[in-house]
Amino acid sequence: MRPNSAKRKLQAGESVTCGWLSIPSSYSAEIVARQGFDCVNVDLQHAMTGFETAVAMLQAIATTDAIPLARAGSRDPEPMMKLLDAGAYGIICPMISTAAEAESFVDACRYPPVGSRSFGPARGLLYGGPDYVTGANDEILTIGMIETRQGVENVDAIAAVAQLDALFIGPNDLCMDYGKAPKAESDDPEVVSAIARVLEAGDRAGKPVGIFCSSADAAIQRQTEGFRFLVPGSDANILTAVTRDAVTKLR
Amino acid sequence: MRPNSAKRKLQAGESVTCGWLSIPSSYSAEIVARQGFDCVNVDLQHAMTGFETAVAMLQAIATTDAIPLARAGSRDPEPMMKLLDAGAYGIICPMISTAAEAESFVDACRYPPVGSRSFGPARGLLYGGPDYVTGANDEILTIGMIETRQGVENVDAIAAVAQLDALFIGPNDLCMDYGKAPKAESDDPEVVSAIARVLEAGDRAGKPVGIFCSSADAAIQRQTEGFRFLVPGSDANILTAVTRDAVTKLR
Amino acid sequence: MRPNSAKRKLQAGESVTCGWLSIPSSYSAEIVARQGFDCVNVDLQHAMTGFETAVAMLQAIATTDAIPLARAGSRDPEPMMKLLDAGAYGIICPMISTAAEAESFVDACRYPPVGSRSFGPARGLLYGGPDYVTGANDEILTIGMIETRQGVENVDAIAAVAQLDALFIGPNDLCMDYGKAPKAESDDPEVVSAIARVLEAGDRAGKPVGIFCSSADAAIQRQTEGFRFLVPGSDANILTAVTRDAVTKLR
Amino acid sequence: MRPNSAKRKLQAGESVTCGWLSIPSSYSAEIVARQGFDCVNVDLQHAMTGFETAVAMLQAIATTDAIPLARAGSRDPEPMMKLLDAGAYGIICPMISTAAEAESFVDACRYPPVGSRSFGPARGLLYGGPDYVTGANDEILTIGMIETRQGVENVDAIAAVAQLDALFIGPNDLCMDYGKAPKAESDDPEVVSAIARVLEAGDRAGKPVGIFCSSADAAIQRQTEGFRFLVPGSDANILTAVTRDAVTKLR
Amino acid sequence: MRPNSAKRKLQAGESVTCGWLSIPSSYSAEIVARQGFDCVNVDLQHAMTGFETAVAMLQAIATTDAIPLARAGSRDPEPMMKLLDAGAYGIICPMISTAAEAESFVDACRYPPVGSRSFGPARGLLYGGPDYVTGANDEILTIGMIETRQGVENVDAIAAVAQLDALFIGPNDLCMDYGKAPKAESDDPEVVSAIARVLEAGDRAGKPVGIFCSSADAAIQRQTEGFRFLVPGSDANILTAVTRDAVTKLR
Amino acid sequence: MRPNSAKRKLQAGESVTCGWLSIPSSYSAEIVARQGFDCVNVDLQHAMTGFETAVAMLQAIATTDAIPLARAGSRDPEPMMKLLDAGAYGIICPMISTAAEAESFVDACRYPPVGSRSFGPARGLLYGGPDYVTGANDEILTIGMIETRQGVENVDAIAAVAQLDALFIGPNDLCMDYGKAPKAESDDPEVVSAIARVLEAGDRAGKPVGIFCSSADAAIQRQTEGFRFLVPGSDANILTAVTRDAVTKLR
Repeated sequence: MRPNSAKRKLQAGESVTCGWLSIPSSYSAEIVARQGFDCVNVDLQHAMTGFETAVAMLQAIATTDAIPLARAGSRDPEPMMKLLDAGAYGIICPMISTAAEAESFVDACRYPPVGSRSFGPARGLLYGGPDYVTGANDEILTIGMIETRQGVENVDAIAAVAQLDALFIGPNDLCMDYGKAPKAESDDPEVVSAIARVLEAGDRAGKPVGIFCSSADAAIQRQTEGFRFLVPGSDANILTAVTRDAVTKLR
Repeated sequence: MRPNSAKRKLQAGESVTCGWLSIPSSYSAEIVARQGFDCVNVDLQHAMTGFETAVAMLQAIATTDAIPLARAGSRDPEPMMKLLDAGAYGIICPMISTAAEAESFVDACRYPPVGSRSFGPARGLLYGGPDYVTGANDEILTIGMIETRQGVENVDAIAAVAQLDALFIGPNDLCMDYGKAPKAESDDPEVVSAIARVLEAGDRAGKPVGIFCSSADAAIQRQTEGFRFLVPGSDANILTAVTRDAVTKLR
Repeated sequence: MRPNSAKRKLQAGESVTCGWLSIPSSYSAEIVARQGFDCVNVDLQHAMTGFETAVAMLQAIATTDAIPLARAGSRDPEPMMKLLDAGAYGIICPMISTAAEAESFVDACRYPPVGSRSFGPARGLLYGGPDYVTGANDEILTIGMIETRQGVENVDAIAAVAQLDALFIGPNDLCMDYGKAPKAESDDPEVVSAIARVLEAGDRAGKPVGIFCSSADAAIQRQTEGFRFLVPGSDANILTAVTRDAVTKLR
Repeated sequence: MRPNSAKRKLQAGESVTCGWLSIPSSYSAEIVARQGFDCVNVDLQHAMTGFETAVAMLQAIATTDAIPLARAGSRDPEPMMKLLDAGAYGIICPMISTAAEAESFVDACRYPPVGSRSFGPARGLLYGGPDYVTGANDEILTIGMIETRQGVENVDAIAAVAQLDALFIGPNDLCMDYGKAPKAESDDPEVVSAIARVLEAGDRAGKPVGIFCSSADAAIQRQTEGFRFLVPGSDANILTAVTRDAVTKLR
Repeated sequence: MRPNSAKRKLQAGESVTCGWLSIPSSYSAEIVARQGFDCVNVDLQHAMTGFETAVAMLQAIATTDAIPLARAGSRDPEPMMKLLDAGAYGIICPMISTAAEAESFVDACRYPPVGSRSFGPARGLLYGGPDYVTGANDEILTIGMIETRQGVENVDAIAAVAQLDALFIGPNDLCMDYGKAPKAESDDPEVVSAIARVLEAGDRAGKPVGIFCSSADAAIQRQTEGFRFLVPGSDANILTAVTRDAVTKLR
Repeated sequence: MRPNSAKRKLQAGESVTCGWLSIPSSYSAEIVARQGFDCVNVDLQHAMTGFETAVAMLQAIATTDAIPLARAGSRDPEPMMKLLDAGAYGIICPMISTAAEAESFVDACRYPPVGSRSFGPARGLLYGGPDYVTGANDEILTIGMIETRQGVENVDAIAAVAQLDALFIGPNDLCMDYGKAPKAESDDPEVVSAIARVLEAGDRAGKPVGIFCSSADAAIQRQTEGFRFLVPGSDANILTAVTRDAVTKLR
């Protein structure tokens, strides 16, 4: 089976960069995937992307060495299984606030007897290889999002879930759940402290921690803080910022 | 009928900024259109976009004040008429090398008796208003691309075509046709001189001249040279450059 | 933030007309939206429409002054949040039979601290404006469907849910749940009485009540009865009726 | 091979009703096709429809007894052949102004030795049956549009083209080419006379003549005038008119 | 209402063949449906197919005499109702492990008062006919999948659910849940015995039993064992096997 | 630039196997491409595939080592250029009957100064690498189809066109143009002799010759005859044959 190079790097304690796709297009997906990220994530939660376009985007990423991931729209297990069947080599699950939610999430990503993922690895076989079914439980990357106050409070129990490979902070939702304005790099003390607490819990549990950042510079800063799964903004963020600047300059 | 504000600005001698869409998505189209460009072009020649996605992108642009344009895939009149029916308020026609080609192009964009555009203004009516048919010949913007040596040599005759509203230089194809490496801002003397010749012909004929640029800075430079229709790179160019930089920085 | 003119009219006690889209096409959506409705609803429950086409339809509606709404496929919160991110300025939620179901529905439509909507307002920002996040809780319209006997029995408790803006009767499902033949304008006494009970509950709670109608004439009649959110049939209903009549006439 | 019942009716001197699809959706296509038309046309010229949606619409029509037709975007032979391969059982070709254009059109619709249609009847085989290739030249309906002054002047020569099965008037384009305002039922004497001339030429040549009408009532009137291929408006026309009326009534 | 010929055959104790579609295309769907199967299933669980393509595939199947079925992605009722509205004449529900799950499944497929399916039979009316609503509870085929150890243990209770029409074994998932390698035709004694137990339970309850097979030959063998709903592999399985063989031969 | 391994094999006198895609789906494309073919062709002439799906299919092929090709719908240069921009590494051009047609075809596939391909290598850059523009003229494979009597008669002149890399026989069209029933492996003496003549002309000119075959066995036979570019049927052919056999066996 094709090794999950992003998971291996994380297991080896190395940093991993992740491209983030909000635009529903296999062309923009391939553009981003071609630039050297360790992995690229197809967002199904806050992006304008449905399942079939997500499949085409996973195919586009698979033309490169970047590992294809998908963020599920919710904790519902069925769409996760379908994304794995479609060749996602990892799932980012939003809104993990309890260990039970984390258990349910990873259960959907592992074949029996470890979990209860249903058999039918359509594109998984094409991308992973003929031994996909025996290797998938080891290679598929499971990343749980911590983005609520409750998630922060339960973070040690969540990080202790055996099949959960990594934690990922959604800073905007986290800010809002703490009653603050949403910001990727908030300097609100409560938010700063909550983020630090997640990072420490990851360290204690030997699990890498990631965070969504507003830019490459912000991601470099997060890397120095100890984050190892780094998302330097989305395609939509980039396109917005650069075209806005261009128009301003040209006026 | 809704006035074509981009055409009016050009007619008034003002500069016009144009966003350029190579990614086949109505979401990225709306992102770009929302940033303040005077007009936004849906490329059908070198983009990964087919007709129906182009329609959705024209709709996305129409949620903003930016005027929707489309670059046709070739000089073939039929797809131009279909794009106009779909609500494009202007057509950029590639590879205009003779006055006859320019005449054929504008003929497809004008209703009888001025031209021979076929009747059936589906989305044109929705975007332009119920008096679309009587006003379209005045409002639709026709932009002919000069991107061959032959086009440069014939540029005065082309610029003299009555219904042609503007000239637009494709610098990459122009370079290649002169036997040079393709570059948006080439400093090859032959190319520089060819570009200058087009600009002068536009001035002589009282027609604005535009050019594709590799960045906003390059577009500002072109503006100082006298170009009035300015494209500061495409969405795909931007996404490539920024994600490549991000990965480089993060390594 | 762009004001929700349909919500404002309802709050002011005025009637609101709503177009209803069952055909999965951004072109037919734009046709309907262009005719002067106060708002237009993209149906995701009984229509043939998936998420990405719904996004394109919301864009099409956004080319006009009509406010874009979406009926979710079920009470599941995740698709509602995704539709709001896609720029729906209101959600119609089917099958609200208890106050708890209404609470869960509106919770998904409001950002913290009022609700638990997740942050990521992709097209919401484009349609609503840069202050979308602070204004969304006020502008987004929440409409709960009463279409079961249980819903009628609980209607006062449902109408009392603070963040629920309006009630909307699904007369066909209501008929069936009462064991009657499905009809938009049933004259069955039990159904008539159930509908009246919902209208009265709305009045008591100061919440406008709407109903799906089979035609414009039926909607006018409902308006005189006191309904303020009026749907004069769907695009599919119209197309069926008119083409059937045409064929009959022509034979 | 499945007989082309619409062609047979025309050959027997009977009237044929034709639904007209401008909305790119297989659902609305099936709604229209289900109402009893003899045939239903997928428009590729002035509709918002691309090739793949057209295929799905041809499939939708094929769920009913209505014969699926397609109007090509232009006189270009290649897309016609592709539409025939996709199961269109007839082609309406726009802008036939000379006998040579008519010859070229029908040549693309007939296999050798009659014409030069290329072999590859993908969906043709599924819809028509395993003997499609031997029967297609007989069953496929060829309809040439007369919609220019030149077409009217050459109508007898056009009608004499052996493999051309019927003539079809595009009244809007015809009006415009005569310098008049486009109208489906113009009472301009020149236009009236041109239309009469086409009808007479059809009669002389023993070829049925059709015309696009603005409504069922107008089509009935045209039937009394001798037209035998009757289109009582398009789906988009219907949806526009009925929703506009509904809004007006409700205000 | 159009009779469900596949359900009638099963009720009469006859065998039924079912094509299985994993490729998201209405063209391949029509190819398969045209070859003589009694019914054809659009898979929404392990296929690469989203809702709108599924609708187009159901339309493609409806061009033939094969009865269109859909396998839902999970036990979630809402997508089942939407597939029924889209004209599926039967639902295959995965992962039925208890009688309560079977009850919930069939409840979603039956209108009140039998079940709680919501009214809005868009394409159902087109495919089934104008009396769809009164006949649907009788014609719609409900097939519950037994593919867990728990399902086998509860199979008699499941088979006793009144509105459940048939049982269908997912042999791969069944193998995995028993801790064995997934195989359509496993000779593992525990799996063999579990499969036999389901078949016997079906017989006792007077309900036909089906099973997914890896080939036509395997299906013939299953038929002799008493299975009456036979799936001889999927389109994707066939394409994989035949192209792999072709390449091997040609080397 | 990524080398075109299929072209290199042909240049080295080796045989090349080519998968053939008529089903418009990136999933079936990836299935076929994954089985070991040297190259895989996306058909745009007789398949049900439009441009955007073709792009997704080219991406799917690019996840494997198979070289992506596309058959253009006609000799029209513009769609060929667009397919090359989309990452096709070779074009199969139908209906080459004269050397002038072959010259026009290859002209569209080569950048200046060799040809007149327009610059804008969107996905070409992603698939081929950053030096795509300088290498493309060498790597892109040009294959002209001989499928008319005229083409056979002109085959030596066609084969002599410098930039034409290979000849490919369309046996069905060839049969029809000779007035015979279309058959991939016709034993009609005239057809046999015409095919032999093309093969000999290829040999004389040092250009490999290919042919479409009905099966792998037929392709092996063609290989022994000297053909070096071998297509063992299309995905649609395979699916039709195997499902038809399955149904027949099961009855």
